[in-house]
Amino acid sequence: MERQLRIIVPFKFNGAKGRLSSALTPDQRKELSFAMLRDVLSTVREFGRVTILSRPGLKAEDVGRDVDILESDLDLNDALNDLIEMQAELGWPSDILIVMADLALITRDTVKGILDCQGDVVFCPGRGGGTNMILIRNCIFRTCYQGRRPSFLENLEFSRRSGLSAAVYESFRAGCDIDVPEDLVEVLLHGRGEARRLLEGWGLR
Amino acid sequence: MERQLRIIVPFKFNGAKGRLSSALTPDQRKELSFAMLRDVLSTVREFGRVTILSRPGLKAEDVGRDVDILESDLDLNDALNDLIEMQAELGWPSDILIVMADLALITRDTVKGILDCQGDVVFCPGRGGGTNMILIRNCIFRTCYQGRRPSFLENLEFSRRSGLSAAVYESFRAGCDIDVPEDLVEVLLHGRGEARRLLEGWGLR
Repeated sequence: MERQLRIIVPFKFNGAKGRLSSALTPDQRKELSFAMLRDVLSTVREFGRVTILSRPGLKAEDVGRDVDILESDLDLNDALNDLIEMQAELGWPSDILIVMADLALITRDTVKGILDCQGDVVFCPGRGGGTNMILIRNCIFRTCYQGRRPSFLENLEFSRRSGLSAAVYESFRAGCDIDVPEDLVEVLLHGRGEARRLLEGWGLR
Repeated sequence: MERQLRIIVPFKFNGAKGRLSSALTPDQRKELSFAMLRDVLSTVREFGRVTILSRPGLKAEDVGRDVDILESDLDLNDALNDLIEMQAELGWPSDILIVMADLALITRDTVKGILDCQGDVVFCPGRGGGTNMILIRNCIFRTCYQGRRPSFLENLEFSRRSGLSAAVYESFRAGCDIDVPEDLVEVLLHGRGEARRLLEGWGLR
């Protein structure tokens, strides 16, 4: 039987993408953030119920229908682990896939790729040691986005210490989160959605 | 019948990796370049005859046995296309796989991945629009590493204009060429060879 999947997309709508400030105005950064989010949502939504994890104040009309918004005042890591604990208390009705909102290049195949990996938990590394997607099949896992070392190492280490089987899913597209001006060219070269059209509309090439 | 493969690894031994100068001394950059080259060679060598394409002066003892060195005074693009033309004149005795010498993360599976792709030519994109590997199965292809636009686009465009079927092989590991200080963490996190041990030996973490 195929397991149910719940997809969590953490999203920061306020002051997002500050490291793009040398290339884009605050309004452009906000617009790009939402465009990337909508690209991610339209890619992942066929795989399960989608929840955007956000600070309070995100407007439903900005993110489209068919998606839940879960507001939290906690920082990213605590908010994610609260959510994991809630699912655990409910008897783990579905696995959890965490997908960062700035993965502007991911496609259906990228998502299928991580879902096809074995393991209690599957990590998809981003550039610089980030963890851009996490597939969680075991309720004792907790995300480690705020440790001393890169989250990819912290997440692997947590799994090891907890006796969980961890797999790594390496993906060119999911490895590419859009953080700094140099990343914009990746959207222009490899993107297929709203974010790319937005950048092209601004005359970026 | 399996087709023969000739693997070309372009390598710059003089003044290599200048963009790492804020993080590494000239000697360290040279040492790292050679370590990455040897990692690449040891990964690709099982797939075919390997030729290092280099400016004159590369010493055989620095790169190990079982590998040819082809010296050329031409720039990268012309040297590669000379080589392709020579193969074409010989009746294309083998396909050609070009692999950049700074792909410190590639594994056997990475190489298998591109070889498994269909197409007259297969491009593996690097960060920023580079083309980190090219598999050439048709003798009319010419590399486009010195165009106006990123080589990935130029190579695709050349294929289209020439009526060649082009495929794209996306790989987290092969997408990661080591050019700037921020890339070193990728070697430390995901590398498995000499380059990683070298960086660790220098106290990088």
